[in-house]
Amino acid sequence: MSAPQEVKVLFFDVFGTLVDWRSGVAREAKALVGAKGRQLDWLAFADAWRGEYQPAMNDIRAGRVPFCKLDILHRGNLDRILPRFRLAGLEEPARAELNLAWHRLDAWPDVPPALLRLAKCFRLAPVSNGNISLMVDLARRNRFPWDAVLGAEYAGDYKPKPRVYLAAAEAFDCSPAQCMMVAAHSHDLAAAAVLGLRTAHVARPDESGPGTGERAPSVAVDIAAADLMDLADRLGC
Amino acid sequence: MSAPQEVKVLFFDVFGTLVDWRSGVAREAKALVGAKGRQLDWLAFADAWRGEYQPAMNDIRAGRVPFCKLDILHRGNLDRILPRFRLAGLEEPARAELNLAWHRLDAWPDVPPALLRLAKCFRLAPVSNGNISLMVDLARRNRFPWDAVLGAEYAGDYKPKPRVYLAAAEAFDCSPAQCMMVAAHSHDLAAAAVLGLRTAHVARPDESGPGTGERAPSVAVDIAAADLMDLADRLGC
Repeated sequence: MSAPQEVKVLFFDVFGTLVDWRSGVAREAKALVGAKGRQLDWLAFADAWRGEYQPAMNDIRAGRVPFCKLDILHRGNLDRILPRFRLAGLEEPARAELNLAWHRLDAWPDVPPALLRLAKCFRLAPVSNGNISLMVDLARRNRFPWDAVLGAEYAGDYKPKPRVYLAAAEAFDCSPAQCMMVAAHSHDLAAAAVLGLRTAHVARPDESGPGTGERAPSVAVDIAAADLMDLADRLGC
Repeated sequence: MSAPQEVKVLFFDVFGTLVDWRSGVAREAKALVGAKGRQLDWLAFADAWRGEYQPAMNDIRAGRVPFCKLDILHRGNLDRILPRFRLAGLEEPARAELNLAWHRLDAWPDVPPALLRLAKCFRLAPVSNGNISLMVDLARRNRFPWDAVLGAEYAGDYKPKPRVYLAAAEAFDCSPAQCMMVAAHSHDLAAAAVLGLRTAHVARPDESGPGTGERAPSVAVDIAAADLMDLADRLGC
């Protein structure tokens, strides 16, 4: 990286990059719905729920409907997939509780120690499509040392819309070049880079199951890291 | 307090309630401008700068001009008062640096240990008129354990406008009654209470100099505390 000393703030994608949504959602669904005697492929259930994630944001990105927080979209997606798993009869309190599965995800093991290192060198904030309460619950659970919680709810739009990245930079009084977006997804990094942010890719090859994730970025990035400890090493932190 | 177990989040006013803006601004101004050989009453300078604070927000509260972050208002206020102190000749880089005095304020001594206690029982966030970068700098300096940074910049308006308090409650997925506003200023607490938030007053009798602050609230509150450690005691935390 040519001028790492210029970077003042690191922005983090969260789902997939910092936390393992797949096993966490499967675990929570099994604990809540499985406890009622239902048996099914809980990883497939998690995959189906996550599969509705990007489409659900498109109407908001396109300006066809007003912004609402991700918890609301997750709930609509849950209602949509339940019949596919013969769970259309799941009652209301259980649906609301199940929707909080996304607030109870565990970090990949490298993340908490690496964030503590990185916090000594940079300001840190999630720039996620997850809402603030969701980010706070994940931070409390996994001890993420955020300086602020930015992202979709702060910007009122969803990544990869430019406003999400730019609002985060402005909140820290930084130019885009003073900010580095960290993500396991090339499309997220490509959107940040075009605005002038620095970018770091983190490999999460098993994000949606073994071998499904990006082992390496498919776009030009400033740093391609094996994990977050490797990123801290490369940033000299 | 009738039902403290209902409160999930504590919101904090910052200037005056958590940090001593008067001695901090005086210290920073003396270090920066006094170093150039200028002698003046630095506490009076701090008071004059703070004196422009509430009026500067009125055009935004009234909807006459778009929202801008407090750093911008502080800078306009600084430019306004400099001639009164025969500092109209202060050059540009020094003005910008001096404006950051508000990012370098120290907490009252009871605050850091009390926030660590309160963080074990509640979610914590500043709901201040200060902008996010300012709140982050104060948090780093004083080790404030915020879960998120809310307030004026998040809401796009200034206290005591209702949106500032309500946006903070909504960000935590809480009803107003599940939130408690903590402040040393009765007008802040009155605005929160009318929306249904719980309220706690913290006495800061010397905020703007000896005997100038509120020793006790002038409005009905749920808790009137001597300081933040006393508030933690009263909340059973």
